[in-house]
Amino acid sequence: MSLLVVGSVALDSIQTPFGQREDALGGSAVYFSTAASLLTHVQLVAVIGDDFPEAHVKLLESRRIDTSGLVKVAGGKTFRWRGRYGANLNEAETLDTQLNVFADFAPTLPENFRDAPFVFLGNIHPSLQARVLDQVRAPKLVAMDTMNFWIQGERAALLEVLKRVDVLTVNDGEARLLAQEPNVVKAARAIQRMGVKQVVVKRGEYGALFFDEHAHVFWAPAYPLESVFDPTGAGDTFAGGFMGYLARQGRVDPRSLRQAIVMGSVMASFTVEEFSVDRLATVTAADLRNRYDTVQRLTAFEPVELA
Amino acid sequence: MSLLVVGSVALDSIQTPFGQREDALGGSAVYFSTAASLLTHVQLVAVIGDDFPEAHVKLLESRRIDTSGLVKVAGGKTFRWRGRYGANLNEAETLDTQLNVFADFAPTLPENFRDAPFVFLGNIHPSLQARVLDQVRAPKLVAMDTMNFWIQGERAALLEVLKRVDVLTVNDGEARLLAQEPNVVKAARAIQRMGVKQVVVKRGEYGALFFDEHAHVFWAPAYPLESVFDPTGAGDTFAGGFMGYLARQGRVDPRSLRQAIVMGSVMASFTVEEFSVDRLATVTAADLRNRYDTVQRLTAFEPVELA
Repeated sequence: MSLLVVGSVALDSIQTPFGQREDALGGSAVYFSTAASLLTHVQLVAVIGDDFPEAHVKLLESRRIDTSGLVKVAGGKTFRWRGRYGANLNEAETLDTQLNVFADFAPTLPENFRDAPFVFLGNIHPSLQARVLDQVRAPKLVAMDTMNFWIQGERAALLEVLKRVDVLTVNDGEARLLAQEPNVVKAARAIQRMGVKQVVVKRGEYGALFFDEHAHVFWAPAYPLESVFDPTGAGDTFAGGFMGYLARQGRVDPRSLRQAIVMGSVMASFTVEEFSVDRLATVTAADLRNRYDTVQRLTAFEPVELA
Repeated sequence: MSLLVVGSVALDSIQTPFGQREDALGGSAVYFSTAASLLTHVQLVAVIGDDFPEAHVKLLESRRIDTSGLVKVAGGKTFRWRGRYGANLNEAETLDTQLNVFADFAPTLPENFRDAPFVFLGNIHPSLQARVLDQVRAPKLVAMDTMNFWIQGERAALLEVLKRVDVLTVNDGEARLLAQEPNVVKAARAIQRMGVKQVVVKRGEYGALFFDEHAHVFWAPAYPLESVFDPTGAGDTFAGGFMGYLARQGRVDPRSLRQAIVMGSVMASFTVEEFSVDRLATVTAADLRNRYDTVQRLTAFEPVELA
C-alpha cells in the first residue's frame, strides 16, 4: 500500500572522525523514503530550492518514490544543515542551520496523495504536521517524529497533533523530555496517556523499545556494527523501514509491528555505514533479509530450565 | 556443581534520588553469591573486620553459601564504600573508599574449595585473581570481572590473568578502555585477541552483549523496569546469575550460555529495585522464571516476509 511522507529534503555538510562531506543529500524525508521505497511505493511531499542538484531528484525518482509532491521554489535555496560528530558518534553538534525554503514550507498534498493509507509526519513544526493530517482522508496508520526543539518550544501544538496520530517515534532523550520523567518505561507510558496509541523509543546502537496499545513492550535489537561511519539519518531511516514494512504488509497487527520494528533497525544499520544515503541506496532485498535473519539469530534464546 | 567466588564483602553507604542507607551489606562477592545461591551451591572467599554485623553473616549462611572461606580479621575494620547517584542513576560518584582489611587481602582457599568446577574472580587486584587461579585444580569455567582502576593502573598484571580465564565480564566503558577502541563490537573482538575466550559486555538498562569463541554475538535484553531504586551491585548480581545458572546446568554449551546471560540480566533487575540485597534476598525460583519468561516474550519476533 502507498506510504505518504512529509519532511525535509536537505543538503548536509558533515564532519565525523572518519571524514567529511559537503552538501550531501540529506533530510528526514530523503532518508525515510529511500529506506521505505525498498519495501513499498512512497509518496514524497517536501520543498527544495532551485539550487538542488537534479541528480539527487533523479536518484529518488529511480526508486519507488513519487516526487510529484516535491515542490521546487524558483530563486529559493534548499535547507542546509552543517554538523559535526565527536569520537563516540552519539550526538551531532549543529554548527549551522539555514532553513531557506523550508522556513515557508506549507505542505499541500497532491490530490492523489490524500488517500494514502500509511502516513509519516517527519520532524517538522507540529502545526504543519496537523496541516498534513487535515488533508489526508482516511489513513490506516499515522506515525510522527519530533525533536527537542518542538517539545520545548511548541509543546501545546505538539500535544494537539499527538492526539491525532497512532505512533510516535522518538529517541530516549526526547521521550524523557516530553514526559518529564527520567525512567524511559514510565516516560513512554506517560506519552501514551497524552493520546498517542503507540510509542517507539529509538536507542541508537542499543536498539529500540516499542510500547503497544495493550501495555506490551517489545525490545528490539540493533544490528551490531563493527564500523559506524556517520549516524546522520539513522532515526529517519528506522522510521522508513518501520512504516515501509507495515505498508508493504498492508496490516498493522502485533506480529507485523514487531517485524516492522526490526526492519527499521536493520535498515538504519546500513545508513550509518557511509555518508548520506550512499550505502542505503545500494541495499537489496537480499541484504535486508540477511541482516534481519542475523538479528533473529543473535537474539534467540531457549526457555529457562529451573526445577 | 559448586561455584567458587572470590571478591569483596563491604559495608556501603549510598545516596540515591530516592533515599539513603548507611553501612548496608554490599561488595561484589555478596551480590554475586546472593544471586548465584538461588541456583547452585556457592563457596565464598572474602575478608571482613570484626565490626561486620553477625546478622549479615547469618543471612549469607541461611542460603546455599559456604562461608568457611570468609576470613574475619581480629581488630580489623570491614571494607567501606560511600557513593552517590544523580537523577539518571547511570554512574555512581564515589565519595569515600576505606579499604581497611581489604588492603591486605591475600585470598587462601580452603582445601575443599580447590576442586570447584566453576570459578568467579570478582573485581580485585589482578595479581590476587592470579593467586586464586594458582590454587584451583581443574576448573571447568573461570570468569572474571575488573574495573577501570586496574585497567589503567595494573594493565600488565591484568593482561596476564586475562589469558588464564574463559570469560571476562565488563561494562561498555571498561571494554572500550581495555581495548582502546570506541566501537564496542571491535573492542570485544580485540579483548578476545588478548587471550580471553569469551566476553560479556554489560550495558545496564540496555542489556548485555555476549561474544563467544566462534565469533557469534548474543544480544541479551534487560528486564524493562519502571522503577530503578539503586543500581549498586547490578553487575555483580548479573555475574552471579550467569555463573550460577551455568554451574547449576553443569555444562557450558551455546544454549546454556545464552540462557545464563538472560538469567544474569533477570537477576540484576531485582537487585536494583531496592538498597543492598534487600530485594534479591527475597527472590524465589518462581520470580526468576516469571521475569525470564517475560523477557522471552518481549524479545520474540517472527521471521521477515519479503518476496
